[in-house]
Amino acid sequence: MRRCVCPGSFDPVTLGHLDVINRAARLYDEVVVAVLDNPAKHSLFSLQERVELLTEQVRDLGGVRVMPFGGRLLVELCEQVDAQAIVKGLRGEVDYSYELPMAVMNRRLTGVETLFMPGEPGLNEVSSSLIKEVARYGGDVSGLLPAAVWAALTAKLAD
Amino acid sequence: MRRCVCPGSFDPVTLGHLDVINRAARLYDEVVVAVLDNPAKHSLFSLQERVELLTEQVRDLGGVRVMPFGGRLLVELCEQVDAQAIVKGLRGEVDYSYELPMAVMNRRLTGVETLFMPGEPGLNEVSSSLIKEVARYGGDVSGLLPAAVWAALTAKLAD
Amino acid sequence: MRRCVCPGSFDPVTLGHLDVINRAARLYDEVVVAVLDNPAKHSLFSLQERVELLTEQVRDLGGVRVMPFGGRLLVELCEQVDAQAIVKGLRGEVDYSYELPMAVMNRRLTGVETLFMPGEPGLNEVSSSLIKEVARYGGDVSGLLPAAVWAALTAKLAD
Amino acid sequence: MRRCVCPGSFDPVTLGHLDVINRAARLYDEVVVAVLDNPAKHSLFSLQERVELLTEQVRDLGGVRVMPFGGRLLVELCEQVDAQAIVKGLRGEVDYSYELPMAVMNRRLTGVETLFMPGEPGLNEVSSSLIKEVARYGGDVSGLLPAAVWAALTAKLAD
Amino acid sequence: MRRCVCPGSFDPVTLGHLDVINRAARLYDEVVVAVLDNPAKHSLFSLQERVELLTEQVRDLGGVRVMPFGGRLLVELCEQVDAQAIVKGLRGEVDYSYELPMAVMNRRLTGVETLFMPGEPGLNEVSSSLIKEVARYGGDVSGLLPAAVWAALTAKLAD
Amino acid sequence: MRRCVCPGSFDPVTLGHLDVINRAARLYDEVVVAVLDNPAKHSLFSLQERVELLTEQVRDLGGVRVMPFGGRLLVELCEQVDAQAIVKGLRGEVDYSYELPMAVMNRRLTGVETLFMPGEPGLNEVSSSLIKEVARYGGDVSGLLPAAVWAALTAKLAD
Repeated sequence: MRRCVCPGSFDPVTLGHLDVINRAARLYDEVVVAVLDNPAKHSLFSLQERVELLTEQVRDLGGVRVMPFGGRLLVELCEQVDAQAIVKGLRGEVDYSYELPMAVMNRRLTGVETLFMPGEPGLNEVSSSLIKEVARYGGDVSGLLPAAVWAALTAKLAD
Repeated sequence: MRRCVCPGSFDPVTLGHLDVINRAARLYDEVVVAVLDNPAKHSLFSLQERVELLTEQVRDLGGVRVMPFGGRLLVELCEQVDAQAIVKGLRGEVDYSYELPMAVMNRRLTGVETLFMPGEPGLNEVSSSLIKEVARYGGDVSGLLPAAVWAALTAKLAD
Repeated sequence: MRRCVCPGSFDPVTLGHLDVINRAARLYDEVVVAVLDNPAKHSLFSLQERVELLTEQVRDLGGVRVMPFGGRLLVELCEQVDAQAIVKGLRGEVDYSYELPMAVMNRRLTGVETLFMPGEPGLNEVSSSLIKEVARYGGDVSGLLPAAVWAALTAKLAD
Repeated sequence: MRRCVCPGSFDPVTLGHLDVINRAARLYDEVVVAVLDNPAKHSLFSLQERVELLTEQVRDLGGVRVMPFGGRLLVELCEQVDAQAIVKGLRGEVDYSYELPMAVMNRRLTGVETLFMPGEPGLNEVSSSLIKEVARYGGDVSGLLPAAVWAALTAKLAD
Repeated sequence: MRRCVCPGSFDPVTLGHLDVINRAARLYDEVVVAVLDNPAKHSLFSLQERVELLTEQVRDLGGVRVMPFGGRLLVELCEQVDAQAIVKGLRGEVDYSYELPMAVMNRRLTGVETLFMPGEPGLNEVSSSLIKEVARYGGDVSGLLPAAVWAALTAKLAD
Repeated sequence: MRRCVCPGSFDPVTLGHLDVINRAARLYDEVVVAVLDNPAKHSLFSLQERVELLTEQVRDLGGVRVMPFGGRLLVELCEQVDAQAIVKGLRGEVDYSYELPMAVMNRRLTGVETLFMPGEPGLNEVSSSLIKEVARYGGDVSGLLPAAVWAALTAKLAD
C-alpha cells in the first residue's frame, strides 16, 4: 500500500492546498493530511477548527484521512501511519530553498522521502497568511478558498 | 492622467527609495508615495516623522505627493487616488519572490498592476533595517541617506 | 504621451505575450510591440510572419503598434518612437536574473527604464520555445495560443 | 500498480542518477528509466551504450526497467507504460526553475504529474556534463561514477 | 599576516561550522571565530557555553582563536584583530541573497571584504536552528554535531 | 605565501573584472590571473590580445601575474603556481548556482578552495558578452571598460 503525508498548518485550508491533496490522492492509495498544532504560531483557527474545515472538504475524496499532529517529529507520524513519502506543494524557487533542509533532515532521520509537487498556477501563489491579511481588511479572497472556508473566515474575522 | 503608487515603510527614507521615486516621477504624471502605518512593526520613526522626512525630500520634485496609509488595503488607496499601477523597487531575486504573491493578489482584487523597477546598483542593495542596525552601533551610513535624514537618524538614536 | 515598448521574438506570439501586451495597453497611451529580427537565432516563423500574426491579434486593441526591429539597439527604437519605458513580462525569478543586466545597461545608455510585469499565472509559465518543441512532436498546445496562431503553427510544422 | 518514469540523457549514468533511481524504486512498484535519444545534443555515448551501462547498474535492483526514448513526447511514453508520475532529481533552485515549465506543460497535456526529489548532497551537485569535461582533461572523477562507467568513460575518451 | 573572521551564533557549533572553520584555517594564518552575543535572539546556550563548546572543538587546530562578540559592529572586531576578510559558509542561493547586503555594507564601512565559501555537501545544508528543533522532539541529530556538543545538547534539552 | 587564482575569459577585461582582481590583490600575496584559452568559444579577441590587454591594466598593481591557460584543468594550474584558492567575482544568485558545481568538483579533485567575492554594485552586473553585444550596435559602453580596452574594442569591431 502506497501512502503519503501532506503536512501543513491549513490556517485555513485554501484551494491551493486542496489542489495538492487531490493530486496526491490520485498518486497514492492513501493520503494522510497532517494538520500541525504549533502553539507558538498563534493560528487564527484552533486546531480542531482547522481539522474540521479540512475534513469537510475532503469528505467525498476517497483515500484521504485528516489527522492533527503536534509535539513530535513529522517522521514519527510517517512511521506510525506507514507512509513512505511526504508530498509538499511548492510555490516557487525560494519555497524550495526553505523546504530543502527539512527534507534532507527527514531522510537522514528515518529514510522517509520528500517529494515536491509544483503548485497549480493561479491557485498556489498565494499563502494562507496573505489571504488572512487581505481578508482582515475586507478584501474579497473568496476565489482562493472553498465556499465553506470563506464563510468561516469572514465569520471568524467578524468576531 | 497616469498615476502610480510607491508604497513602503520609509523608516527612514533612503537614497535608494528616493532613486525609485525620482525615476517613477519621470514615468508618471503623479506619484503617490504611500507611507505604511503598521503598528505591529514598531517603526523607529513615528508615522508623522516618516511622512515629514519624505515630504521634505520630494518638495522640489514635481508631481510627487506623500500620504500616510494604514488600516486598509493598498488597492483601496490606489482606487481613491485613481492610480493604475503600483511601482516597487527591487533589490534582488529573492525580493521579487516575496513581492510576487502580493502583486498577484492585488491584481486579483481590483485589477491594479504592480510594476517592478530594478534598484540602482550601489544605492538599493541595502535596506532601511540594515541601515538602522548599523547606525545603532555607530556605523557611518551617511552615504546611503539624504543629509537631513542622516541627521534625524543620529539624533533619534542618541535619545 | 506615455509610451512603452514591449520587445520579444514572438516566434510565435502566445496568450502569455498577449496578456502582457493587453495589460501594458491599459497602462500606456501607446504600446509599441518590437518584433526582434535576430538572424542568428533561426526563428521558425519569418520576421514578416511573426509581425503579421501579432498584428492580427492586436488589431482590435486600441493603442498598440507592431514594429519589426533589428540591426540596432533597442534603446534607439525607444528614442525613435519616444518611449520612456520598456515593459517586460516575467516568468520567474531566474528570468529576472537574466533580464536585469540588460535593464541596467539600457538605463545606462539612454536613461530608458525597464519595468517588469509579473506574468499571469497559468499563461506565462510556458515559453514559445517549449510550445514549439511540444507541438513538433504532436502535442496539443492550443490552449496556450490564439486560434489563428495555433493554426499557423500546425500548418508550419506540417511542411 | 504505481509506476513512475525517470527521464534523462544518462551520458553516462552517474552515482547521482542511480541514487534517484534507487530511491524512486522504493517508492514505486516499477520505475521506468527513459534514456533520451536526442540526436541534436551529440551525446558522448551512443543511445545503445547509455542504455547498456544503465541496465548493468540496475540489474540487481527489483522493479526497474530501462527504455530508450526519442522522437515523441515524454507524456506518450508515460501513457504507454501506464505511469502516473515523472520523478526528477533536483540539483538546486535554478534546476527547479528550468524543470518547472516542462512539468506544467506535461500536466496540461495528459495530467501526468512531475514530482521533484532533492538530490543526495555530495552526489547530485555535479552533472554528467561537468564530469565529462573534467575527465576529458584527465581529472579523476571515479568517485562520482560506478566503477564500470568510469572504466567505460576512460576507454571512450582514450579513443 | 593573513587573518580572517568567521562570525556566527554557534548555538551550538555544528560539524558544518567546523568544516568551514577548518577550511578557512588552511587558507589563513589565523582564523578568529566571532561568537555573536545577541540578547534579542534568545540563544539556547549562553554566550559562555557557546564559546566553551567551540573552543574545545578547535583546541587542536592551529591558528584558530575564539572570541565573544557583541554590542558593536563586526567591522570593528575585524579592525581590532587586524583581519582583512570575513569568511562565511554558504548553504545555498537564498543564503547568499541574505548575506549580500551585509557584505556590501561592511565593505562600504571599512573596506573589509566578505568571501563566501560553499558549504560541504552533506554537512552544511542543515542549520543549528533546525538541529535544535529536531533534537527538542527527540530526533537523533548526532551525525551533524561533534560528540561533545551532542552530549551538551541532550543534557541542555533534558533540563 | 598566500596565492590565489582569478580565472576568466576576459574577452575583453572589464572594470568589473579589474575591481575583483584589485580587491583580491589586497587579500593575497600574489594573484595569478588565468586567461582561458577555449577554442570552442570563439572569443572576439585572441588569447594573446586578451593577455596583453589585461597585462597592461595590472602593470602598476603589485603582486598580479597574468597567465594564459588552456588544455588542462584549472586545478592543475593552481598546483603549478602553488595557489590555495580560486577567487571568483559573483554577479548574482544565479551566477552562484552555475559556479557552485565547479567549486565542489575542484575541491574534490585537489582540495583547492573556491571563494566567492560579491561584485561591486554598478560595475559587475554587466558581462563582457553583453558589453560586446551592445558595442557591436554602436552603444557607448566606455564607462564599463578601461580606456585602452574601449579603444581596442571599437578598433576590433570596426574591422
